[in-house]
Amino acid sequence: MSDVKAGIEPGEVGELMYDLVGDLYPICRSITGNGVRETLRKVSDHIPLKAHEVPTGTQVFDWTVPREWNIRDAYVKDSDGIKVIDFKKSSLHILNYSTPVRKHLSLAELREHLFTLPNHPDWIPYKTSYYQERWGFCLSHNQLRKLREDSYEVVVDSSLDAGYLTYGECLLTGRSSDEVLISCHVCHPSLCNDNLSGIALCTFLAKHLRGRELRYSYRFIFIPGTIGAITWLALNEENVNRIKHGLVVANVGDSGRMHYKKSRRGDAEIDRAAVHALKYSGNPYDVIDFSPYGYDERQFCSPGFDLPMGSLTRTPWGRYPEYHTSADDLSLVQPKYLADSFKTYLSVLDILENSRCYLNQNPKCEPQLGKRGLYRQMGGHAESKEAELALLWVLNLSDGNHSLLDIAERAGLSFGLIDGAARRLYEAGLLRECEGESRGKFAVPQVTTKPVNGK
Amino acid sequence: MSDVKAGIEPGEVGELMYDLVGDLYPICRSITGNGVRETLRKVSDHIPLKAHEVPTGTQVFDWTVPREWNIRDAYVKDSDGIKVIDFKKSSLHILNYSTPVRKHLSLAELREHLFTLPNHPDWIPYKTSYYQERWGFCLSHNQLRKLREDSYEVVVDSSLDAGYLTYGECLLTGRSSDEVLISCHVCHPSLCNDNLSGIALCTFLAKHLRGRELRYSYRFIFIPGTIGAITWLALNEENVNRIKHGLVVANVGDSGRMHYKKSRRGDAEIDRAAVHALKYSGNPYDVIDFSPYGYDERQFCSPGFDLPMGSLTRTPWGRYPEYHTSADDLSLVQPKYLADSFKTYLSVLDILENSRCYLNQNPKCEPQLGKRGLYRQMGGHAESKEAELALLWVLNLSDGNHSLLDIAERAGLSFGLIDGAARRLYEAGLLRECEGESRGKFAVPQVTTKPVNGK
Amino acid sequence: MSDVKAGIEPGEVGELMYDLVGDLYPICRSITGNGVRETLRKVSDHIPLKAHEVPTGTQVFDWTVPREWNIRDAYVKDSDGIKVIDFKKSSLHILNYSTPVRKHLSLAELREHLFTLPNHPDWIPYKTSYYQERWGFCLSHNQLRKLREDSYEVVVDSSLDAGYLTYGECLLTGRSSDEVLISCHVCHPSLCNDNLSGIALCTFLAKHLRGRELRYSYRFIFIPGTIGAITWLALNEENVNRIKHGLVVANVGDSGRMHYKKSRRGDAEIDRAAVHALKYSGNPYDVIDFSPYGYDERQFCSPGFDLPMGSLTRTPWGRYPEYHTSADDLSLVQPKYLADSFKTYLSVLDILENSRCYLNQNPKCEPQLGKRGLYRQMGGHAESKEAELALLWVLNLSDGNHSLLDIAERAGLSFGLIDGAARRLYEAGLLRECEGESRGKFAVPQVTTKPVNGK
Repeated sequence: MSDVKAGIEPGEVGELMYDLVGDLYPICRSITGNGVRETLRKVSDHIPLKAHEVPTGTQVFDWTVPREWNIRDAYVKDSDGIKVIDFKKSSLHILNYSTPVRKHLSLAELREHLFTLPNHPDWIPYKTSYYQERWGFCLSHNQLRKLREDSYEVVVDSSLDAGYLTYGECLLTGRSSDEVLISCHVCHPSLCNDNLSGIALCTFLAKHLRGRELRYSYRFIFIPGTIGAITWLALNEENVNRIKHGLVVANVGDSGRMHYKKSRRGDAEIDRAAVHALKYSGNPYDVIDFSPYGYDERQFCSPGFDLPMGSLTRTPWGRYPEYHTSADDLSLVQPKYLADSFKTYLSVLDILENSRCYLNQNPKCEPQLGKRGLYRQMGGHAESKEAELALLWVLNLSDGNHSLLDIAERAGLSFGLIDGAARRLYEAGLLRECEGESRGKFAVPQVTTKPVNGK
Repeated sequence: MSDVKAGIEPGEVGELMYDLVGDLYPICRSITGNGVRETLRKVSDHIPLKAHEVPTGTQVFDWTVPREWNIRDAYVKDSDGIKVIDFKKSSLHILNYSTPVRKHLSLAELREHLFTLPNHPDWIPYKTSYYQERWGFCLSHNQLRKLREDSYEVVVDSSLDAGYLTYGECLLTGRSSDEVLISCHVCHPSLCNDNLSGIALCTFLAKHLRGRELRYSYRFIFIPGTIGAITWLALNEENVNRIKHGLVVANVGDSGRMHYKKSRRGDAEIDRAAVHALKYSGNPYDVIDFSPYGYDERQFCSPGFDLPMGSLTRTPWGRYPEYHTSADDLSLVQPKYLADSFKTYLSVLDILENSRCYLNQNPKCEPQLGKRGLYRQMGGHAESKEAELALLWVLNLSDGNHSLLDIAERAGLSFGLIDGAARRLYEAGLLRECEGESRGKFAVPQVTTKPVNGK
Repeated sequence: MSDVKAGIEPGEVGELMYDLVGDLYPICRSITGNGVRETLRKVSDHIPLKAHEVPTGTQVFDWTVPREWNIRDAYVKDSDGIKVIDFKKSSLHILNYSTPVRKHLSLAELREHLFTLPNHPDWIPYKTSYYQERWGFCLSHNQLRKLREDSYEVVVDSSLDAGYLTYGECLLTGRSSDEVLISCHVCHPSLCNDNLSGIALCTFLAKHLRGRELRYSYRFIFIPGTIGAITWLALNEENVNRIKHGLVVANVGDSGRMHYKKSRRGDAEIDRAAVHALKYSGNPYDVIDFSPYGYDERQFCSPGFDLPMGSLTRTPWGRYPEYHTSADDLSLVQPKYLADSFKTYLSVLDILENSRCYLNQNPKCEPQLGKRGLYRQMGGHAESKEAELALLWVLNLSDGNHSLLDIAERAGLSFGLIDGAARRLYEAGLLRECEGESRGKFAVPQVTTKPVNGK
């Protein structure tokens, strides 16, 4: 049986994840362009990552892959030659996907292109304009207030040309070709929780699982939000039926409690596994029903796919004030929270890996556990015995209709306790795996990837 | 799509309903007789109403249409020639269905035929004796206390002869021959909330719907309680399968909150539509489970029919002190409550009319709403957007398995918001109606009425 | 229809049960041996009981019937010849199933064989060692503290030889060969609540039912815990499909509230009947979900049998401090609690006996109850009428899909009220029994018992 949790040192993994967040922080990412490429290159220092390049103009369902956007520099300079807004200081200063511009404007003209957050006067907002051509700058409200009447030189040295949409993919092959899909978005510029934390978690989760004997195959995808998910689904449409479980990763570095947002199905195994893992995590948590808004579960759970994918985050999007502002920086995310998220993900995957269905080989009455060393030898006064109770629950419900997760839920015991009991009973010959659950079933999977433009 | 709510002016409709209640108040109705005929004649000033006359002795399931009861006068006169009880002052003074009598009695003999409410000494009770031949008078307890020892002349100038049971029917033909049945009872004498308010609501609901393009056909029946419902069902037995939804109307004029009593099925579409409408009405309300007691839902929901019919009232029968007493008068019922009930009924019917099932024409991933003008153009900081959320919910759940009401329930959004989103998506070509839901399906309905004795 | 509750005088039955508890108290029982035989002999003074003797070495599923244990005497004597521990004073003093021994030991050597309850220094614990050969004594902690350094003579005059496992069975034949199985354990020595109270309840329940006209056949089994249940199931494997309902009886004499522990199925008719009976008992109660721990429901509800059997007790095992100690004596159990338990059992059986399925013979609209004398004759002001409501509920739901228990649950009325209404309607010809429910179906049952070694 898989033990995906073995060998973890949470302290260390948290620091490693945090270091990767720090490495990726300065890069200006968008839904296309070199920022994504550089990000994937840094990730590929840790795990084998296949980059895919999808040409501008490719039709993906109702959408078209847009032109590739790159930016070299952008600033607003006053008549004294001082840069009052400078992209080099923060990738957030530029309205993401701004068209190139070079002109002189009065303050009034300039203001129509400026975005601030009056309620958070020190923070720079994060804004995009992917599907309407325009240019603009984001700045703190205090910066805006200091701008005087003047003639300003505005420069956006960007390009918006035919090119590619880039995404990365890392496949870990398990005994089964059935897949767990784990997805994060890579299109946000200098924002740490949303979603450098997600990139770091996927990277180190893949790195950790790579060394394990796995039941499922695991596919990690690093994709631009929305258009990237739509592109990936369009290119992989015929293979999505291999996806048995999935998670969308984001916001895993802040101090908030864990939140699990259910799949559209609401009662998929991933939903039950995630809720169970959170319930026994020892920490407070929240479970949220599916809604067709949020991250790329919008696409994975669209009615034509309806994949069993939920989203496991700390504080969800939009519910922390720093969301989509410059305050989502390296101080908002902490190694200990990254490590805790990592551990939680592993405990969910541990359930998926091990929640098999067994058949009690002595279904009529209890087997005599004592003679097999599985039971205390002397009856009498009551005493606490959760481990014995777990043995009895596994025996009682291993009738071919209950997985170990089913049993854990009904028994009100942790999956770990039930799984441990099943291992002991299996070793004692009291259980066998249900038909179709044995290892023999799993041939070496013939997974074919479909690189569009391999790097 | 139907818009049954268009053009309503609640202020006006409340006054019109109240005027009709006032017109009908003096009439002495019973389960048969001229009171019902006069009532239906006044209703027919507002809507096309077909009166049916069913002869005494007609077998209707386990029951027999009784002899027709009519009353011209009734009084108790003391030895001074003063009428101490006088039917002409209130139709409630006579025990309904009293046999004719003309005799002199002592006070003691008379008392055996008198009914009062000691706990409400100023009120006259409403009493009937349909299936046991007797006579009696109802009076206030204070009136009774004033009666002295005397020889009283008792006159009940009534008749109980072979005749007819009368009921009225108004059919509004929609695109479908599937029917919504709306029923009220017309057998109570001078009682306003129970049930002149129900008669007025049915009248003005029919009048309002008459001018609309309707999905369903609507059948309004004005029937005597119990025996009238049984008679109607017996005569229409082969056509009840056309009834897809229904409501029993009563007590819709008092100041109490709305109550919906579910159908026997408990989860019929009418049950869900009514509960949804109340939930989003902005007013407090109560939902009551079915029980085989109350109004004519007892018959419509008997196991041999089990029609999907609930009952939508304000304060239910028996739960207000004035119930079945002379205090259920023109002061208990108010135009504003009648209007509010009318509005609530329309909002339920609006759901029935519009809760269709659609198919998302771009089921794989979200369609690009922005290019269709259905979405704000610039991403970024979170903002409230219920209308966009409604669009996404309709797209996400329009998979052929969810009606708009299903979607509204799951989304936790009002039906109006979901219906509005569906209209916009439909117009944008992103939805089409599910098979069997298109207008083409609905031939002109061949409804045949079965008048027993047309008037 | 059965009336299993007729003729009960709870005061008397409580005293009779208590007397039987007192009679059985001094006997040293175990899972085999003469203690069980003597117990069954005393029970057979009250009811016809068939004793079964199953030879040592008989294979019963995963288990083997053990050697028979008998004990004549056991003591520990100090050097002054004083018996400091004496089996003759309490059967609890001997570790149950102790092997024979005769030796002299120092206090230190002796202590390894002594068991006490330091937290309850006056109580003797109850301990067993069925499947590991050893000997030992149980004593109060205060007794232990008084033992001084000395050379102690230890005598256990027991035998552990090939013999039999003994159990008793009492079958009451009803109209149907479908059975209700009622089981109690008879292996505990001088412990009153656990489980002399259970033996007494089974005895007097069987005695009471014996005089009744019964729908079901009732099988009472008096068996050693665990190995007795396993043995009974192994020997009766092919007949367990006759068991339609069952209860495991224990702890029915203490002052605690009633507890019902559900069957593994959780929604079996016995579960619903027991919960309904408790709900309308007028006393506080608790309902517990199934768990594969406790009494012999562990065996009856093992996955290979999954019998619809729950357990109805007062305070469950292990939840009262006196459990499995000498304090579970004749003062813990009281006649009034025994009588209350008896009454509760009867009310559960009354539901099983009478919860039939009927068909309304006038399913279209209500039948006219008035002309059959089932209804008050005069309509009008509201009044309380639970009995009429019960008539209407039975008529409304007697559609072939609802048993009387189903109807009682949905109506929120007591089973007694619903059953009474059904009897009145049945007598009036308004109901008939559903197919397969009539008496004619039940041939005289051909029950064959399988005595192993009849006594």
